[in-house]
Amino acid sequence: MESDFTPLLAARTQTMSGSAIREILKLLGRPGIVSLAGGIPAPDTFPMDVLEHLFSRVLERWGSGAFQYDLTEGFIPLREASAPYLRRFAVEAETEHILVTSGSQGLLDAVGKILIGPGDAVAVESPTYLGALQAFNPYGPRYIEIETDTEGAVPDSLEHLLLKDKPKFIYLVPTFQNPTGRTLSMVRRRAIADIITRHGALLVEDDPYAALRYRGEVLPSIKSLAPENVIYGTTFSKVFAPGLRLGLAVPPKGLLADWLVKAKQGTDLHSNTLGQALAAVYLEEGHLERQIPKIVGHYAPRLDAMLMALDRSFPADWHWNRPEGGMFLWAVGPAGTDTLEIYHQALERNVAFVPGRYFYADPARGEAAMRLNFTNADPDSLLKAVSTLGEIVSVQI
Amino acid sequence: MESDFTPLLAARTQTMSGSAIREILKLLGRPGIVSLAGGIPAPDTFPMDVLEHLFSRVLERWGSGAFQYDLTEGFIPLREASAPYLRRFAVEAETEHILVTSGSQGLLDAVGKILIGPGDAVAVESPTYLGALQAFNPYGPRYIEIETDTEGAVPDSLEHLLLKDKPKFIYLVPTFQNPTGRTLSMVRRRAIADIITRHGALLVEDDPYAALRYRGEVLPSIKSLAPENVIYGTTFSKVFAPGLRLGLAVPPKGLLADWLVKAKQGTDLHSNTLGQALAAVYLEEGHLERQIPKIVGHYAPRLDAMLMALDRSFPADWHWNRPEGGMFLWAVGPAGTDTLEIYHQALERNVAFVPGRYFYADPARGEAAMRLNFTNADPDSLLKAVSTLGEIVSVQI
Repeated sequence: MESDFTPLLAARTQTMSGSAIREILKLLGRPGIVSLAGGIPAPDTFPMDVLEHLFSRVLERWGSGAFQYDLTEGFIPLREASAPYLRRFAVEAETEHILVTSGSQGLLDAVGKILIGPGDAVAVESPTYLGALQAFNPYGPRYIEIETDTEGAVPDSLEHLLLKDKPKFIYLVPTFQNPTGRTLSMVRRRAIADIITRHGALLVEDDPYAALRYRGEVLPSIKSLAPENVIYGTTFSKVFAPGLRLGLAVPPKGLLADWLVKAKQGTDLHSNTLGQALAAVYLEEGHLERQIPKIVGHYAPRLDAMLMALDRSFPADWHWNRPEGGMFLWAVGPAGTDTLEIYHQALERNVAFVPGRYFYADPARGEAAMRLNFTNADPDSLLKAVSTLGEIVSVQI
Repeated sequence: MESDFTPLLAARTQTMSGSAIREILKLLGRPGIVSLAGGIPAPDTFPMDVLEHLFSRVLERWGSGAFQYDLTEGFIPLREASAPYLRRFAVEAETEHILVTSGSQGLLDAVGKILIGPGDAVAVESPTYLGALQAFNPYGPRYIEIETDTEGAVPDSLEHLLLKDKPKFIYLVPTFQNPTGRTLSMVRRRAIADIITRHGALLVEDDPYAALRYRGEVLPSIKSLAPENVIYGTTFSKVFAPGLRLGLAVPPKGLLADWLVKAKQGTDLHSNTLGQALAAVYLEEGHLERQIPKIVGHYAPRLDAMLMALDRSFPADWHWNRPEGGMFLWAVGPAGTDTLEIYHQALERNVAFVPGRYFYADPARGEAAMRLNFTNADPDSLLKAVSTLGEIVSVQI
């Protein structure tokens, strides 16, 4: 007989909604599906050719140490090797100020855990990254939404919210944002750095995609413009392997880092040592710097294929952006479009994407939008899948 | 200039105390120290001889799949391979009811996250596992303490607490408990299974050490006696490698498992795939079953050495237990003993242990006790270290 322990659930638990990401991961196993959903890197971008070498080196260098308990802050050789990598994003940090996290998700959970009390305001872009909402929700935030346009978050809107609601922190994905693929312009980066510095505000800059730039100029992180007001986070999921569940965080100097470490200690003690050791060698020996151009070479034609297919197949009353990198773009239909309905029709024809509503703190919004991922299918499949979507949206009323 | 973001911390964050475990992990790097602290497995017990083989098999079988995002519930081949392993503890579970966690800590965090609201009662042994308190604390529990004696938790005390305080759940480590090394007797297992079934109560049975039995009879898990009232958890940290950060959980059938998965998804998305794939092959090919006798053969003489050294070196007014397995024993001095003072003196002489106070929900207790780990030093070092401790405690007033 099954017991019903539902009455034991904490109030916070009701905020943990059934997740689109979770359902999306389950779809991956279904044969024949072309997934424009998920933020799943193409397995062809993983450095499969060097893995046995990396593993041998790890055994040679650290032996059983790579399989032992380790520091909550992270495996020291990985943190040392990460300092030069972070300079790619204009993030200057010494080893002791770099923390290893269990993916970006691990950082977002720790941030939520130490900062969000029930009812506390947290400022997020509208739309924003679903995984961040899932990380923050259990801690009881009240979301306040920063207006966005094609250049990303609008600085005036942010400043208005800081004055009015005094949020605990601001959460932004400034470069090739998930879900929209939008990138905050240089002018706005400076404006936002200036605003958070003046207001003594704290920004969580989630930056998983910056290395995936296919064209255009590299922009510095907001962290580089306001280092003492930004918790910077990035991940190895897109430039090494997501299954290792490893990310990096650079908090402002001061006590915040200690609290993040204490929170992480209660959550998972530390991130897996073997993965950290593999990543350390991957960085140290320059494999990562050699892999990035390969990843870019792999994804750039996919973005081009998707843009071409959209131009060809989508009706004139749909709009989408033309990102210079990342993994996603954002397509919006005319008023009255219901992309959840389109989603169900698309699934029947073996095409998946994520309906826009899942990326809003307020799920009533985003009904006309869809997030399209272009990294996990080859150009031909993308052309075909977008063409199928085009047929479906064209017959919507 | 360092910003002070301390005013932004959530109220819960103040409950995340500086941690003894954390300091202990840092001590590992200090040369010359003999650590009787920590729950650190001896690196000699890791299956270093099969790791390259396991890694090759993982690449052969799953290729890039072992490095890709995977299900929050856990890597299916590992869950399949774990069902027969769990029978060793009399836990019967099908693949779909087994969850993979990021070590035991990951399960404890998820349990706290979904069940504990601020001020909710949680019943724990007194003393109890420090890492569990660290996992639960951020969710605001009120601890109620179950009396213990040399046979472990006292059933009458538990039943009294269930009636009086209606705790959200009970947390027990019934076998070779951390910190005391005590094991709940068969009679008490039955009594507790009966109590929780009658009261419809939920037990979290944390069982990391049961495979490490050096003598005496195997006892079945409480889970096997009350399957629908127990969340059973175990870990690969003591029988494979702690650095992989992998554990297993078997919740009661019903909705609780779904909530645990949702909580985990917000925390780390899933546990690292590579480690799970390595563990799957380690189980499937029978390496784990061959490794356990080696681990037992490695640790049993260490327990004997520690017991012999205590018999020889400690004064007559100290008492300790004689566990049949696990990693710890518990030594208690006469009234007035201050093991924190002894700890500082011992550190100066390169011996570390954990003072008993850190294992009580109420830190004012346990001042006369110490937790001694016998797995992470060879028998000669243990003899010497315990002899040093004996000298220190003999001159205490």
